[in-house]
Amino acid sequence: MTKRELEGMMEEVRAGTLAPEEAAARLRAAPFEDLGFAKVDHGRELRQGAAEVVYGAGKTAEQVCAIVRAIRRGGARRVLVTRLDAAKAASLAAAEPDARWDATSRLAVVGPAPEPDGAGEICVCAAGTSDLPVAEEAAQTAEALGNRVVRLYDVGVAGLERLLAHVGELQRARVVVAVAGMEGALASVVGGLVDVPVVAVPTSVGYGAAFEGLAALLAMLNSCASGVSVVNIDNGFGAGFLASRINHLA
Amino acid sequence: MTKRELEGMMEEVRAGTLAPEEAAARLRAAPFEDLGFAKVDHGRELRQGAAEVVYGAGKTAEQVCAIVRAIRRGGARRVLVTRLDAAKAASLAAAEPDARWDATSRLAVVGPAPEPDGAGEICVCAAGTSDLPVAEEAAQTAEALGNRVVRLYDVGVAGLERLLAHVGELQRARVVVAVAGMEGALASVVGGLVDVPVVAVPTSVGYGAAFEGLAALLAMLNSCASGVSVVNIDNGFGAGFLASRINHLA
Amino acid sequence: MTKRELEGMMEEVRAGTLAPEEAAARLRAAPFEDLGFAKVDHGRELRQGAAEVVYGAGKTAEQVCAIVRAIRRGGARRVLVTRLDAAKAASLAAAEPDARWDATSRLAVVGPAPEPDGAGEICVCAAGTSDLPVAEEAAQTAEALGNRVVRLYDVGVAGLERLLAHVGELQRARVVVAVAGMEGALASVVGGLVDVPVVAVPTSVGYGAAFEGLAALLAMLNSCASGVSVVNIDNGFGAGFLASRINHLA
Amino acid sequence: MTKRELEGMMEEVRAGTLAPEEAAARLRAAPFEDLGFAKVDHGRELRQGAAEVVYGAGKTAEQVCAIVRAIRRGGARRVLVTRLDAAKAASLAAAEPDARWDATSRLAVVGPAPEPDGAGEICVCAAGTSDLPVAEEAAQTAEALGNRVVRLYDVGVAGLERLLAHVGELQRARVVVAVAGMEGALASVVGGLVDVPVVAVPTSVGYGAAFEGLAALLAMLNSCASGVSVVNIDNGFGAGFLASRINHLA
Amino acid sequence: MTKRELEGMMEEVRAGTLAPEEAAARLRAAPFEDLGFAKVDHGRELRQGAAEVVYGAGKTAEQVCAIVRAIRRGGARRVLVTRLDAAKAASLAAAEPDARWDATSRLAVVGPAPEPDGAGEICVCAAGTSDLPVAEEAAQTAEALGNRVVRLYDVGVAGLERLLAHVGELQRARVVVAVAGMEGALASVVGGLVDVPVVAVPTSVGYGAAFEGLAALLAMLNSCASGVSVVNIDNGFGAGFLASRINHLA
Amino acid sequence: MTKRELEGMMEEVRAGTLAPEEAAARLRAAPFEDLGFAKVDHGRELRQGAAEVVYGAGKTAEQVCAIVRAIRRGGARRVLVTRLDAAKAASLAAAEPDARWDATSRLAVVGPAPEPDGAGEICVCAAGTSDLPVAEEAAQTAEALGNRVVRLYDVGVAGLERLLAHVGELQRARVVVAVAGMEGALASVVGGLVDVPVVAVPTSVGYGAAFEGLAALLAMLNSCASGVSVVNIDNGFGAGFLASRINHLA
Amino acid sequence: MTKRELEGMMEEVRAGTLAPEEAAARLRAAPFEDLGFAKVDHGRELRQGAAEVVYGAGKTAEQVCAIVRAIRRGGARRVLVTRLDAAKAASLAAAEPDARWDATSRLAVVGPAPEPDGAGEICVCAAGTSDLPVAEEAAQTAEALGNRVVRLYDVGVAGLERLLAHVGELQRARVVVAVAGMEGALASVVGGLVDVPVVAVPTSVGYGAAFEGLAALLAMLNSCASGVSVVNIDNGFGAGFLASRINHLA
Amino acid sequence: MTKRELEGMMEEVRAGTLAPEEAAARLRAAPFEDLGFAKVDHGRELRQGAAEVVYGAGKTAEQVCAIVRAIRRGGARRVLVTRLDAAKAASLAAAEPDARWDATSRLAVVGPAPEPDGAGEICVCAAGTSDLPVAEEAAQTAEALGNRVVRLYDVGVAGLERLLAHVGELQRARVVVAVAGMEGALASVVGGLVDVPVVAVPTSVGYGAAFEGLAALLAMLNSCASGVSVVNIDNGFGAGFLASRINHLA
Repeated sequence: MTKRELEGMMEEVRAGTLAPEEAAARLRAAPFEDLGFAKVDHGRELRQGAAEVVYGAGKTAEQVCAIVRAIRRGGARRVLVTRLDAAKAASLAAAEPDARWDATSRLAVVGPAPEPDGAGEICVCAAGTSDLPVAEEAAQTAEALGNRVVRLYDVGVAGLERLLAHVGELQRARVVVAVAGMEGALASVVGGLVDVPVVAVPTSVGYGAAFEGLAALLAMLNSCASGVSVVNIDNGFGAGFLASRINHLA
Repeated sequence: MTKRELEGMMEEVRAGTLAPEEAAARLRAAPFEDLGFAKVDHGRELRQGAAEVVYGAGKTAEQVCAIVRAIRRGGARRVLVTRLDAAKAASLAAAEPDARWDATSRLAVVGPAPEPDGAGEICVCAAGTSDLPVAEEAAQTAEALGNRVVRLYDVGVAGLERLLAHVGELQRARVVVAVAGMEGALASVVGGLVDVPVVAVPTSVGYGAAFEGLAALLAMLNSCASGVSVVNIDNGFGAGFLASRINHLA
Repeated sequence: MTKRELEGMMEEVRAGTLAPEEAAARLRAAPFEDLGFAKVDHGRELRQGAAEVVYGAGKTAEQVCAIVRAIRRGGARRVLVTRLDAAKAASLAAAEPDARWDATSRLAVVGPAPEPDGAGEICVCAAGTSDLPVAEEAAQTAEALGNRVVRLYDVGVAGLERLLAHVGELQRARVVVAVAGMEGALASVVGGLVDVPVVAVPTSVGYGAAFEGLAALLAMLNSCASGVSVVNIDNGFGAGFLASRINHLA
Repeated sequence: MTKRELEGMMEEVRAGTLAPEEAAARLRAAPFEDLGFAKVDHGRELRQGAAEVVYGAGKTAEQVCAIVRAIRRGGARRVLVTRLDAAKAASLAAAEPDARWDATSRLAVVGPAPEPDGAGEICVCAAGTSDLPVAEEAAQTAEALGNRVVRLYDVGVAGLERLLAHVGELQRARVVVAVAGMEGALASVVGGLVDVPVVAVPTSVGYGAAFEGLAALLAMLNSCASGVSVVNIDNGFGAGFLASRINHLA
Repeated sequence: MTKRELEGMMEEVRAGTLAPEEAAARLRAAPFEDLGFAKVDHGRELRQGAAEVVYGAGKTAEQVCAIVRAIRRGGARRVLVTRLDAAKAASLAAAEPDARWDATSRLAVVGPAPEPDGAGEICVCAAGTSDLPVAEEAAQTAEALGNRVVRLYDVGVAGLERLLAHVGELQRARVVVAVAGMEGALASVVGGLVDVPVVAVPTSVGYGAAFEGLAALLAMLNSCASGVSVVNIDNGFGAGFLASRINHLA
Repeated sequence: MTKRELEGMMEEVRAGTLAPEEAAARLRAAPFEDLGFAKVDHGRELRQGAAEVVYGAGKTAEQVCAIVRAIRRGGARRVLVTRLDAAKAASLAAAEPDARWDATSRLAVVGPAPEPDGAGEICVCAAGTSDLPVAEEAAQTAEALGNRVVRLYDVGVAGLERLLAHVGELQRARVVVAVAGMEGALASVVGGLVDVPVVAVPTSVGYGAAFEGLAALLAMLNSCASGVSVVNIDNGFGAGFLASRINHLA
Repeated sequence: MTKRELEGMMEEVRAGTLAPEEAAARLRAAPFEDLGFAKVDHGRELRQGAAEVVYGAGKTAEQVCAIVRAIRRGGARRVLVTRLDAAKAASLAAAEPDARWDATSRLAVVGPAPEPDGAGEICVCAAGTSDLPVAEEAAQTAEALGNRVVRLYDVGVAGLERLLAHVGELQRARVVVAVAGMEGALASVVGGLVDVPVVAVPTSVGYGAAFEGLAALLAMLNSCASGVSVVNIDNGFGAGFLASRINHLA
Repeated sequence: MTKRELEGMMEEVRAGTLAPEEAAARLRAAPFEDLGFAKVDHGRELRQGAAEVVYGAGKTAEQVCAIVRAIRRGGARRVLVTRLDAAKAASLAAAEPDARWDATSRLAVVGPAPEPDGAGEICVCAAGTSDLPVAEEAAQTAEALGNRVVRLYDVGVAGLERLLAHVGELQRARVVVAVAGMEGALASVVGGLVDVPVVAVPTSVGYGAAFEGLAALLAMLNSCASGVSVVNIDNGFGAGFLASRINHLA
């Protein structure tokens, strides 16, 4: 609830069109619907410029379906569900016929696909084939939020030609998402080649001293290239969401 | 070196105006000037949209001055030097009369101050008084790169009124930089209040289980608010640079 | 064994009503019953103001049932068994017909439900739907120990309205239990809103740099709000027990 | 700002005694005074039942004095300043003649000493002589907030008689603060002896695998005794504050 | 190969009863039998005062059986196999009829049980029921190496009476093995009660911030009681072996 | 792409036998074939002196087969696939009849076995039987890259004779690969016995404070013997590859 | 206080020679003298077979002197003070003329040197020259507790001959203390050469990935040699004390 | 002592030219000279192909000088002393007039400079100016061991042109040493450009999440480029030594 909305509501109270008790109650109750195990936030689409997103892991299929239903009942055109496994995706498809689910990204989008309305392109590049699930989560999230996405996969720095050959696509983008596990060097190299924001996503790809993504995370946080920021390990959704937000800045 | 520049140079070679050996030599030598201990990159201002930045820690005063001189000789209008202590700052001021240094941020800017030409405002908010050095590094970096900056300091989440009272400034900004040590909760709360990119900067403020900023870093990486990305602990410069880059997107 | 009990026993020895060897033997043998693999402490209910609690994980169904039986034989009205999976719960139900088990909290309560006799209400708030198992363990533990519990679920700080709308329930409580995974910011925000003890419970909800609850744990330990203390990751039982203890202080 | 205060202010708006713009401004400006580098919260004493506390580390002597002055100007009877070194303490004493500072605890209390008005006694026990600075910070904080404090020092578990000899003092307390470094076992042993809340404070006392208090912290978080919760390493203030809060519950 | 043996062999060489090439070959080949995947050390029983011990985890049933057979062929009276699961134990029993395997400790002893010939008793105490597998591995190892063992189980420090009641058994032992997970405080408390060597074994019992035994390990390494040393997490075998070695010192 | 190749291509451009657009396109496209999910690098065999190696973990059987096929289509005589489980190995064997797969090392080699053409022998030594999978991955990788390999297995430092008996094989090698888990001391002892490069491979063999190979990794990085370097935990392939590279230096 | 003493005291109570109140008071007060900041344990020499040891770090010179004086007043023949810096040592020497302090070990022994009365020799071996302070702390502690000590210094495993040449001294000892930093391999190698208890002491010698002794600590905990146990990093005192205890077992 | 030397010595024993007692004594005493605090290994130059190297940190100036003197007395032509600060270097220069010390690398070389006799060139590349101390330690070590060294400094991956321009020098080298702090990506990029062994040296350059070199260390261990191995953080000496060893392989 912004300052402006607060002033507006108070003006109504002064004008007598809104009782003070009602105003306080509205403050408390309006923005979300309480399902008991979850409070669905109907205001988020307005307030944050995007539909509510449901984190599918750690919820039962019933909870996921109930939350999606409530969000749509609140008027949302589109709902994203992340980290949804195949079984829950089947339940969701049964409940919401216009849900589409992708096995690689484990992302479900409920509702019609949007027209791309971002200012430019988002380039999602990934170091290796094993990073694809995370890269696709980023790419599909960005697409579901109205962005054109260019994919550059398997461009790890050990074979620099693969990346340099695509420097044109990289430099044409308005935002770059760099996805890499193991030593995560892709973020630094990409960061040195472009002059737009780079969102780095460490992945848990690797073994041994990769420590489930810690090596890539630390590397990306210490990138010697400026203009790079980092999201959580394997957080393709977060990167796609942030890239979209940057790409939609007026 | 972009694909376009490479094609251009090759066209010259074909036209006979550039010898092939010379082209290869230019590829190797042109973009920087070699000082022995450092290679000054005259191309970065063009390529990355900002002057070269010198990381002052771990360099001697002599090295800092020599690098700044070389960069300016290459035509740069403005040079930033980060993490510069008072003694080195004095040496720099002696060598470069138009250098300005700030004791809080330890940032030196050499050359004239720019006119703000970013698309909107950058809001830098900080949780506590002890976070000011990092917050000022972010704010002054952004100002030196041509941005208007709004500062909201001492707005930690334990006294939520302090932050909520300024939700207007927050929501008016085009990018928000959230600086916090200890538990770093500011990033999540701010992330839930705005619909623009939030650059989170963990600081090493705190003691004990703060583990020199690790607690805040992990908290920010796990922010439950979307649209938040993170830079290194105490990396005010990186946050200010990235915020400026986002604020200057066409 | 308190000083007073020791003095009492010595008085008996002096009075000749208790043989010294017997006194020493009693010291050694009295307070518990030895099952070989476990020593059941019949004195704990008196000494610590609550029934014995059995930690169900890492024990066989047979061991759980034998321990519960021994405790009840010692006169306890009520026994709690934590972290009990469904299979062991079935065994327990077969052995103790008045056992009730909850699938979400994995808590079993054997014996009649108590009348709430605490001084006030305990408010258990949780950041997200995935935190419910831990939150319910806290809430049901507190109820089984004689407390009225108010639940506030899905009030994570990324949607601050959800929490602020319930500030009344929060401020009415005598103790607050704050349950959160990921970045654990809920504890700090709640801590700033109330003037009663806040027991923070980090959960292992999250992924990547959440490091199985470490991020939330560190955040809560570094809370910038005063009056917050922390229990182990996922230790809903411990939080409910401590909250009950505070709520029953004379 | 509580729900009740919000309703009250809205009632004034409806009654015409308060202009809506003014109400919004008051919401934003009232609760604190902005010193630029800090926002002094005059409402905290009312809202949280204790004077504002200033964290002295990471602030200059000038900042500390200015903040203390502002807090007192706001009507506070008493201000605590924690982690204040001798030099800053001297500056504070010059500015505030009724400031008292203790070299062991590094705590300064500005204003008259309170009458103890807590419900019972707080027992602060410490494992070793090296833990005294933290233990005294806890004890003096509690005293400055109106509590009677009993000190049990050098009662580490390697010489159990020292602790057992004082089990009477322990069991008479309404809250126990257990301070220990190294292996931090004191918290578990104390937790098994009493039936009141135990606030455990790990200290950074020790070397090698103590890892600056990490060993004690982990031990205390894993205490096998119920009723124990933990604050940050070396956070004597936090423990004393929480103990006072529990001791002042109506 | 000891200095004395070396001198002896050289004497033979000088005496002409041993060819120099043969001496070098003997040095290289004598002490073990090469199975390809393992080199069986027939000399260890002499050199180290105990039969060869086979670490069963990470070996196939075939490898375990082949190694045991080779050791016995080398003349060993008794072979211990640690961390042997039920399936491999069945294979071993088929191959070696005099093998005895215990499901709790996962230890197999092949060959006749020894007469206790240690100087005194070994007391194995364990904090909780869940620590039994490790405690039994220690106890049975010690028994298989010729020691009398006294078991004290479920004597965790949260119920100090349980331990104090058995202080006699503790103080009668020549070596104490203290097994505990969670906060591992048992080692310190036991260490303060006895004047013999205490071998502390941290276990992976616990959850959350127990970090798979790390909390107990650190606690035991930092024990404030003198005379305590530590073996690896869950290393019951190592503790039993060392206790036996101490108990067999001439 | 080396400097020489770049100069050559430019010469062609100047000679008019290569159009500049074509040159740029070749730079971008030539070195690899894009399968969508992977970019196959046909140039690596020339550039790096070895066939392309496919990391089998984290790829589907279909992806593995498609990549192998593309590499062979590009003219490679031999392809290595690492970390391939039995099921994927069966798929590969069906697609490539000349594939050989080893269950211990999980390595597949597609194409004819090479003649050993390295300058000397590579000695692969391993501390225990459980280290064999990693040791064999190193040994078979080296063999597939044209090296003679000597294996010394089960030569852990606790039975020093086993290692010392083979000091001849060790000292005859041109490179030594030392494979060990647990405390990883083998690398230091071997490093002190030879005067050739030692490639140390920590393994995840062990339990408890081995922390999945971390203990061995740290030990090897801190080896007091000079001439030792380290690869990732369990990275037998990397060690074998590097050993081969050293053994093939002209 | 042992069971026997307790029974004895009770017998006195029954016989009327001891009032019950007095008995309880004696229990509480007898075993130590309270200096306020420390409780001096006069019973430890009897109970634990050694004089009280004062940990000098973290105490002021005044505190150290007061504690030593109290211990001697209690009848102790000898007091050890560990980790005492030169300045405090001078204060102690002024107060206690028969104090001897060693600059390498930082150990002070107050009182006459004992006759060696242990059963055998203790061999203290150290890997490098930098480990001497810790090794000497172990050796001098053992000597002050009545043991003959053999020193083997600079016998790190990278030059195995240095250690093997002294295998006789090693194998003659009744207990071995193995001191090493860096990779800590000495403990495993020594453990494989002897059949007596080995007390391993990791030191903080090293840099980088030695992580202040963590690498050596983990290596020693994972020693593949049986019979090895570990004390805290740099804890020479603890090793010497434990070795003495083993060497004095009846 | 190699097998051949052992056989030789035994032959002498058999021939009667060497008494057996003498042979054993020689085995024990020959290879080093005992200074009490250090055992100087006169055999290392022969056995390991390089002069003894003295680790200067953690030794007094007196110890350093005594060890150097003993080594030279043993016939060594050249001694290296690493990590020597200016004060100790002055002492060494006074004692050994032909000692040369470099302030950047803190390396002292005592004795005449060698003629380069390695097979090829060693290329030492470093990412930033702050990495120079470590890079120079590597380069000067290699030079002191008889290698030609090419230096490429300030070639971090954020400005890829700087590195690519020197790909010729890189590819001409026989071994590459890659020195980098922060995210350590240089090792992977270099590893992809060359077909010779790459020795990666992480440095402690950086701040925050660089964790004193841990980020670079993990990145280098996880390098996606084959042929890369890693030495300890800041271990320039180790890298230079290993590079020399590889460069001197016959």
